[in-house]
Amino acid sequence: MYLGDEAWPDLETYFETESLALVPLGSTEQHGPHLPEATDHLIAEAFAREVADRTGYLCTPTITVGVSGHHRQFHGTMWVEPPVFRQYVESLTRNLTSHGIDRVIYVNAHGGNVPHLREVGARLRLDETAFAIEWMWDESIPELVDDLFEQNGPHGGPKETAMIQYLESELVHDDRLEEARDTGVPDVDAAEGIKYGSRTFYDAADNTENGVLGDQTDATPEKGRQLFEAASDQFVQLCEWLAAQPFEDLLPKDHV
Amino acid sequence: MYLGDEAWPDLETYFETESLALVPLGSTEQHGPHLPEATDHLIAEAFAREVADRTGYLCTPTITVGVSGHHRQFHGTMWVEPPVFRQYVESLTRNLTSHGIDRVIYVNAHGGNVPHLREVGARLRLDETAFAIEWMWDESIPELVDDLFEQNGPHGGPKETAMIQYLESELVHDDRLEEARDTGVPDVDAAEGIKYGSRTFYDAADNTENGVLGDQTDATPEKGRQLFEAASDQFVQLCEWLAAQPFEDLLPKDHV
Amino acid sequence: MYLGDEAWPDLETYFETESLALVPLGSTEQHGPHLPEATDHLIAEAFAREVADRTGYLCTPTITVGVSGHHRQFHGTMWVEPPVFRQYVESLTRNLTSHGIDRVIYVNAHGGNVPHLREVGARLRLDETAFAIEWMWDESIPELVDDLFEQNGPHGGPKETAMIQYLESELVHDDRLEEARDTGVPDVDAAEGIKYGSRTFYDAADNTENGVLGDQTDATPEKGRQLFEAASDQFVQLCEWLAAQPFEDLLPKDHV
Amino acid sequence: MYLGDEAWPDLETYFETESLALVPLGSTEQHGPHLPEATDHLIAEAFAREVADRTGYLCTPTITVGVSGHHRQFHGTMWVEPPVFRQYVESLTRNLTSHGIDRVIYVNAHGGNVPHLREVGARLRLDETAFAIEWMWDESIPELVDDLFEQNGPHGGPKETAMIQYLESELVHDDRLEEARDTGVPDVDAAEGIKYGSRTFYDAADNTENGVLGDQTDATPEKGRQLFEAASDQFVQLCEWLAAQPFEDLLPKDHV
Amino acid sequence: MYLGDEAWPDLETYFETESLALVPLGSTEQHGPHLPEATDHLIAEAFAREVADRTGYLCTPTITVGVSGHHRQFHGTMWVEPPVFRQYVESLTRNLTSHGIDRVIYVNAHGGNVPHLREVGARLRLDETAFAIEWMWDESIPELVDDLFEQNGPHGGPKETAMIQYLESELVHDDRLEEARDTGVPDVDAAEGIKYGSRTFYDAADNTENGVLGDQTDATPEKGRQLFEAASDQFVQLCEWLAAQPFEDLLPKDHV
Amino acid sequence: MYLGDEAWPDLETYFETESLALVPLGSTEQHGPHLPEATDHLIAEAFAREVADRTGYLCTPTITVGVSGHHRQFHGTMWVEPPVFRQYVESLTRNLTSHGIDRVIYVNAHGGNVPHLREVGARLRLDETAFAIEWMWDESIPELVDDLFEQNGPHGGPKETAMIQYLESELVHDDRLEEARDTGVPDVDAAEGIKYGSRTFYDAADNTENGVLGDQTDATPEKGRQLFEAASDQFVQLCEWLAAQPFEDLLPKDHV
Repeated sequence: MYLGDEAWPDLETYFETESLALVPLGSTEQHGPHLPEATDHLIAEAFAREVADRTGYLCTPTITVGVSGHHRQFHGTMWVEPPVFRQYVESLTRNLTSHGIDRVIYVNAHGGNVPHLREVGARLRLDETAFAIEWMWDESIPELVDDLFEQNGPHGGPKETAMIQYLESELVHDDRLEEARDTGVPDVDAAEGIKYGSRTFYDAADNTENGVLGDQTDATPEKGRQLFEAASDQFVQLCEWLAAQPFEDLLPKDHV
Repeated sequence: MYLGDEAWPDLETYFETESLALVPLGSTEQHGPHLPEATDHLIAEAFAREVADRTGYLCTPTITVGVSGHHRQFHGTMWVEPPVFRQYVESLTRNLTSHGIDRVIYVNAHGGNVPHLREVGARLRLDETAFAIEWMWDESIPELVDDLFEQNGPHGGPKETAMIQYLESELVHDDRLEEARDTGVPDVDAAEGIKYGSRTFYDAADNTENGVLGDQTDATPEKGRQLFEAASDQFVQLCEWLAAQPFEDLLPKDHV
Repeated sequence: MYLGDEAWPDLETYFETESLALVPLGSTEQHGPHLPEATDHLIAEAFAREVADRTGYLCTPTITVGVSGHHRQFHGTMWVEPPVFRQYVESLTRNLTSHGIDRVIYVNAHGGNVPHLREVGARLRLDETAFAIEWMWDESIPELVDDLFEQNGPHGGPKETAMIQYLESELVHDDRLEEARDTGVPDVDAAEGIKYGSRTFYDAADNTENGVLGDQTDATPEKGRQLFEAASDQFVQLCEWLAAQPFEDLLPKDHV
Repeated sequence: MYLGDEAWPDLETYFETESLALVPLGSTEQHGPHLPEATDHLIAEAFAREVADRTGYLCTPTITVGVSGHHRQFHGTMWVEPPVFRQYVESLTRNLTSHGIDRVIYVNAHGGNVPHLREVGARLRLDETAFAIEWMWDESIPELVDDLFEQNGPHGGPKETAMIQYLESELVHDDRLEEARDTGVPDVDAAEGIKYGSRTFYDAADNTENGVLGDQTDATPEKGRQLFEAASDQFVQLCEWLAAQPFEDLLPKDHV
Repeated sequence: MYLGDEAWPDLETYFETESLALVPLGSTEQHGPHLPEATDHLIAEAFAREVADRTGYLCTPTITVGVSGHHRQFHGTMWVEPPVFRQYVESLTRNLTSHGIDRVIYVNAHGGNVPHLREVGARLRLDETAFAIEWMWDESIPELVDDLFEQNGPHGGPKETAMIQYLESELVHDDRLEEARDTGVPDVDAAEGIKYGSRTFYDAADNTENGVLGDQTDATPEKGRQLFEAASDQFVQLCEWLAAQPFEDLLPKDHV
Repeated sequence: MYLGDEAWPDLETYFETESLALVPLGSTEQHGPHLPEATDHLIAEAFAREVADRTGYLCTPTITVGVSGHHRQFHGTMWVEPPVFRQYVESLTRNLTSHGIDRVIYVNAHGGNVPHLREVGARLRLDETAFAIEWMWDESIPELVDDLFEQNGPHGGPKETAMIQYLESELVHDDRLEEARDTGVPDVDAAEGIKYGSRTFYDAADNTENGVLGDQTDATPEKGRQLFEAASDQFVQLCEWLAAQPFEDLLPKDHV
């Protein structure tokens, strides 16, 4: 069920009987010469809508701009400062609880949002407002991701390429996949960045000239379909598990 | 040009030659028994995309959740607190300027956002970061709006109904227009709320039982088309006017 | 009853029997070549004291500096940033409730404060601390204001001029009224500022050379007296209405 | 020169030739059974206006509500939280500098404001915005204060009583001076409050039943006159000293 | 009992039976040519550990960096801004109460922290989270301090010198005591800084060339021992007094 | 060189010739039944002091309390909220630069601090105040850590146990190592916590009954010595690398 499409009286039954909401969020940021800036929020939205359709759980509109300051050297990257992002997500989530929601899954497709969603989730749980967790599709199917691609990469690599090839094929510049690989950093392990145990980089531009890592030529729409379906299955199970928990069991444990 | 669809190298020319961005924002909030909660952000996005297509100016992804706490008593309304909304919009706009943008039009379709966008715009202008203004479609064509409808209304009335009938007809419950009128407040002037010069209400629920005002039965898709086209023409002219100004002319005047 | 004049034991009875406080606030900002910078807070204070005298309700000292950054180009304008003003008013109001006050009228004579007082009032009501509303004298008697003057104006025009002529005649430069009109913007409707539905100005200096709008030569002390008495009558009725409400009736409505 | 009385063009010469502003601020808080709640801001305003008249320096309107939470148990005390007070004063002062002011004297008559004014002053100096200092009348004439009264007291004692007897005699309940002494704490040194070197009290109510300390029967209007004149003389000299300093000499010293 | 040394199960009994914690805090800032920058936090820690050992009350690790911006012109001074210090101490204290602590003594050896600890303590008491007070060793034994030294000084003078000579003798440059006196300000009363009742200085560098005041040649380790033992005795009594109070007696008094 | 031990004149040469500071920080939090609550800050301090001694670089006093709210269910854990921690570290670091420091290594021994130090470091770099990075000893020698222990663990496991056995042997309860293993979670991979790709836990108490993970019986002081020496070597090299960089090379890259 997509909240944005509904008139308010038609949401009454949902809020009376369910307490879970799916909130898609991603980023609008450079994803190399071959992928659109919307990549992350398109993926997040696709998973959230798909699973809302399959399960009947409520999906909200998408938060399209997140924590992407580390991609700011590339044209078009949009971002808000980390404290602002946290406050926006926290305020939005607190307010959702006024309708009876008490558990939220942040359907997130941007790694840079993760620690901030964790910080917000911890606060919401601490004062027993809601139990909110984040879910990243690729973390739910690590083996499949590893199996499908030789040289993966955390940003703009073959897994994201395949996903957009499957979801929004017209937005992928297939004729630039070789360029993406050759002017980027194909082998992540070979990328410098950690010195004597310390991460000495902050920006994508510190590590890669075109903004991406991995071997994008390995991506196909069919692999994208496999990834999407496998991760959607995981996500459905997460929703069902979460919806089935008594709220008390989701709250913090007592002091010893 | 829609930023979300582009790969970063393809934005270089735009940022070299233009300095205007269109940022659509609205709300996700109750719009009566007949309209979807997404009404405001759908309208904002439609205008921003249309005019971006007609003029070539850059349109960003949409901010879907705004200042709607005054609709919180109705199922599904989403909102963030006013300080959070201001910070989110301000941070996002400041960061856009890193690519060369120095003027922004907030394509806004939610009245509740207006004073906050004005406050943000004043700050951005004061430190000469950017000249950012907000545009509401109905304020650009007040005569046409008055001509088309007997009983208008600031929220969920015939003008918004007609607009969604035109833009996303499947999301309007046409069979509920009479109900919307009859259980709401058709005649805005008759609505109580101002006492001895003081506004003594804060929430939509203080004034209207179903959340909306006006006579919705007056709306048709054809009127929506007229409104959309007339306001788009105005918006095109605003973009052209703004893009043509020297940046110095947009900055605050000197102290006398 | 004026709080500032009282010793604490003499306030006990009031707080035991009443729960309304009147808080005058205005601005210290340019009001053209003919009016004093204190104009707004003088008017607010005069109304608050007059009505406190007539009704017995408690009047607090005056907040003299508000949100006037849009007048900063003119000598002597004082202001605080909007978030600071909101916090100051909110903190002051919350603390008033410790003595038993649960409803407040912000006797405001500066349009620039209005959205901020509304934002504060909404927060105070939401957590059921207090029901606080703002009152502007001219909004309580719009017909009389229209009747008395040919060319009104929102700032430094004939209505404010007449009011200060009546309240503090020695502070008006009567010999500059023609200058005020001729170097300002007499006909507000003729003033530019809205382009294609968008307000493209932020500061008074964007619209007017001497800081004011309207035809000030139309003002007389007698008209000031009429305005003051008529608006005071309205204000008395507002106080009586507000004091008579059960507190529960002033709180937000429940979720549908 | 009083800023509130002036029309903006009449301030131009001042700002061209001078750079000092006097900002009176006090509190609205209980001052025992005999003195008005306005005591502190009345005293501050009287000094600021007097010295502005004698010297020609600019005096602004008065900030009437300060940091008085420690008097909150007594009817009518008004206050804002310390961070709010600091922000209000800091914002107001920063904005004054837009007209050419670069040095400010906070004419303060409330001890509870002092550390906050010092904190604000330090910040304003650090970024070279302004040199702002606070002045308390009684600290400028400690010997005279000691000479005139047997049992002084930091709050509501004979020195403040004499001052209000002189400035606003109708606001003093002369018939309650004995009561003020007898139900308060006449001998400050005898008051408990410090234990083993630690201040173990936070509120006035922790130390005194009626809110005041000292022997108020010792006060006379004549003593008030003496205090006012002597302290005004000191204040005049402070203004002249401060106005005579080159701004560079008022800025922080360089790093060694 | 020192919290840092304990494993968590070994703290259970303490939290079940006691509710007092000692939190040492000082500064890291210049203390003249003869004393180490750690002077203040070394002294605070020494008292807190000594008294924790003597009484069995719980001592936490030390906060080593406080409000010392007024010493920033001298090499090595470390500091945080006042609002940051307050938040750090407040957050830390609030969290301590989750284990059952409801009273805290800030064992403070830096005057610059005092108003900030008072502000934090007032807030913690107001919402009945905890009763937290600050203790400065020298304020507990003012007569002894006066007796032992001819020319005391608030910063880097003989009392602090003697204390470090006793506690950490190897950190005192005994061969620089004469230099400390001669290039500093031996006679505090002779130091300029107050003009007509107003403090016109903000930084240590405004008053003293080498950062310190007093006659340091008067210090000996034996005097340090006397001071330490006498003040420790006072501190023990404070702990015992505080631990013996019913928590209700430590809370704010009711409104009159 | 340890800043706390030095008198300010003795730091002049360092600041003239070097621009690196080492800031140790950790936590005060439960580390199981066998390790002291100070574990993390003891380890951080030991590395910082050791490497400062070996290299001559400046080491500051230790920040002992960090982000440990996720251990709050266990007696004695101290923590500040994440925004407070970030502000404290950021303010402290910004102020260090006033003496000429422009690069900082946060010698951190608590995983919970990492994302916050990264966020602070990114801000400091963005405005070109300083280049600040965090270093965790175990991340510098991952192979050795893996080689030495069968069942490692991120918190209170054998690597931290060995380290404290080596550094502060009297603080380890060697007789509780078996208990630590048996009532905790020896095999981290077996620990639940990730469901369908989502981390569904927030607190240590969600995963482990006694607060720790790993097989602590595997720890020896000799292994601690090996770890300490190997990681110190890495740290020395990091310092030397960082000190050798031109500051410009440490700043963010330009926009493409």
